[in-house]
Order: sequence, then structure tokens, then C-alpha cells
Amino acid sequence: MRILGIDPGSRVTGFGVIDVTGQNRSYVASGCIKTAGGDLPGRIKVILEGIAEVVATYRPDQTAVEQVFVNVNPASTLLLGQARGAAISALVLAGLPVAEYTALQVKQAVVGNGHADKEQVGHMVQRLLRLNGAPQADAADALAVALTHAQHGSGAMKQLALHGLSIKRGRLA
Amino acid sequence: MRILGIDPGSRVTGFGVIDVTGQNRSYVASGCIKTAGGDLPGRIKVILEGIAEVVATYRPDQTAVEQVFVNVNPASTLLLGQARGAAISALVLAGLPVAEYTALQVKQAVVGNGHADKEQVGHMVQRLLRLNGAPQADAADALAVALTHAQHGSGAMKQLALHGLSIKRGRLA
Repeated sequence: MRILGIDPGSRVTGFGVIDVTGQNRSYVASGCIKTAGGDLPGRIKVILEGIAEVVATYRPDQTAVEQVFVNVNPASTLLLGQARGAAISALVLAGLPVAEYTALQVKQAVVGNGHADKEQVGHMVQRLLRLNGAPQADAADALAVALTHAQHGSGAMKQLALHGLSIKRGRLA
Repeated sequence: MRILGIDPGSRVTGFGVIDVTGQNRSYVASGCIKTAGGDLPGRIKVILEGIAEVVATYRPDQTAVEQVFVNVNPASTLLLGQARGAAISALVLAGLPVAEYTALQVKQAVVGNGHADKEQVGHMVQRLLRLNGAPQADAADALAVALTHAQHGSGAMKQLALHGLSIKRGRLA
């Protein structure tokens, strides 16, 4: 199974692609779509086209998007929401299933500690995917959300399914 | 010239279509895309498909989106941003030019007072488009932003163009 993870941001949208075979996770690709400069419709176009290109190139089976939430100020939050809306639009238009994970869930899944810092996340992404160097910060977060989805898909969700439960948007359903 | 105005919201996205011929504005259509319930990717899909259908049905030449900004709390602002991002995505994907106007600009253009209330906006929309009744609130706001774009396109922007100026995202450029 191939998973595309997305870390949306108003200036940079990170992406990370991993392959999952049983308990094995392997790195496929990662990178950033930069959207700084230009008007909002132009920036949204860059996100839509960038993600469409990533999907066309790597053909993921599933996708996961981080519920980033840096509450600097309302204007920034609105900008982030718009970028996130455009990213999810691109995935929905590609007909892909979209899962969402909070930063807390991602840190817990990857580091085992919901309050881990960015460096710890990067370090664990590097270890779990056996990379030679630490990936760029936005790409690392996108790979981390893909790894989180792999874990929820293979481990936690199967366990829950045995008990007739499922995880929907971070909550037990 | 046919203008599609959009009033994005996390639960309801209003739309309004008007025709502009010289100084004459006429009503074409208006309505709401309701997105309450379901998960975020599902709600984004409803917005994308709803706006695509409006565009396919009424074939606007230009579009204008209100820069709504109700700062209730950060979570609501993020939700609004996501809905707005999806709406603009749909317009960008249709290859349409997208203008943005703040609520202040819309009120000034339609009522002549940036601090006008919703009722005054609805009343003026009804008068300007010679409607028999007051349109629904979300549809009225969408028609108001379309009327604002008509005014900026025909009047203000031509005046500014004479002086080598233009309006870009609410600021003189």
C-alpha cells in the first residue's frame, strides 16, 4: 500500500510518500510545494497543481493530512485553512480517500510522545524509514503523517475492528 | 458580462449570479450549497461539486469571493478557511478569474456604508436587482459581492485605470 502524507501550510505544503508492506515501511519520495508570493487564487492554483502532479507521479492508494494548528493570529489561521482546503480539494478531486490526524496523534504514533518537538519527529522519521540524513522539516512532517496513517491502518484500526470500533477523525466511533 | 459571487461559510456557501450590461445589473440566479454534517473531505467534495455545477449551469465570465471574517474562535476560523479554500479551488479549476472583496468593501459598494448590517445589505440587493422579495441571507451576501465586483469592474477600476492604477485584493496597486 502506498500512502501520501500532506503537511499543509500557508507558505509551504510538505508531502511525503511511503510504501507499506506488512510491518515494513519504505521511503518513496518527499518534498515541498512553495506558495509564497502572489495573490490567493494564484497560490491555491499552485497547491492544486502541485498535489495533482505528486498524485500523478507516485499514484498513492491512500492519503493522510495533518491537522496543523498554529494559532498565531486569526488572519494566519484563515490562510492556513485556505491552503489546507485547497490541498484536500486536490486529493478529493483525484478520488483518493483522505484521513486526518492531529499533530498530537502524529507525535504519539511516530515518537511515542504527544509533546515531542520537531527535531525528535525528524529523527524518528529518519530512523523508521532508514534515511541517510534528516529530511527537510516540512517533508519530515508529511512523512510523519504518512507513517501515522500506516500505523493506524495496520495496527490500531485492525485491533479496534476486532472490537467493532473504528477511528474517525481522531475519535473512536 | 456575467458575474458569479460567492459567500463562503463552513456550513453554507452562498452563490449569486448577475448579468451586467453597461450600468444595468440583472438577477440571474442565487442559492446555497449546504455542507453541514459529514467529515471534512466529504464537505469539501460537496463545495467542489456544488460550485462546479453552478459554473456549468450559468457559465459566468468572472467571479468574486467575499473575504468573510467572523473571528468566533480559531477552530471556526480554520473551518471557514478550509471551505473558502475549496470554493476558490473550484473556481480556479474552472479557469475563472477570482476577485476578492472584504465585507467592508461589499457594504460600502452596495449600501454606501461600510458598517451597514445584514438587513440593509439584503434590502439594497433587493432594490438594485429589482427583486420582488428579499433573498435568503447567504444568497443575498453572494449577490452583494457580485454587485461589488460589477461596480469595481465598470466604475472604480476604469476610473483608476485612467490614472494608471488598479485595485488588487482591496489595495491600490
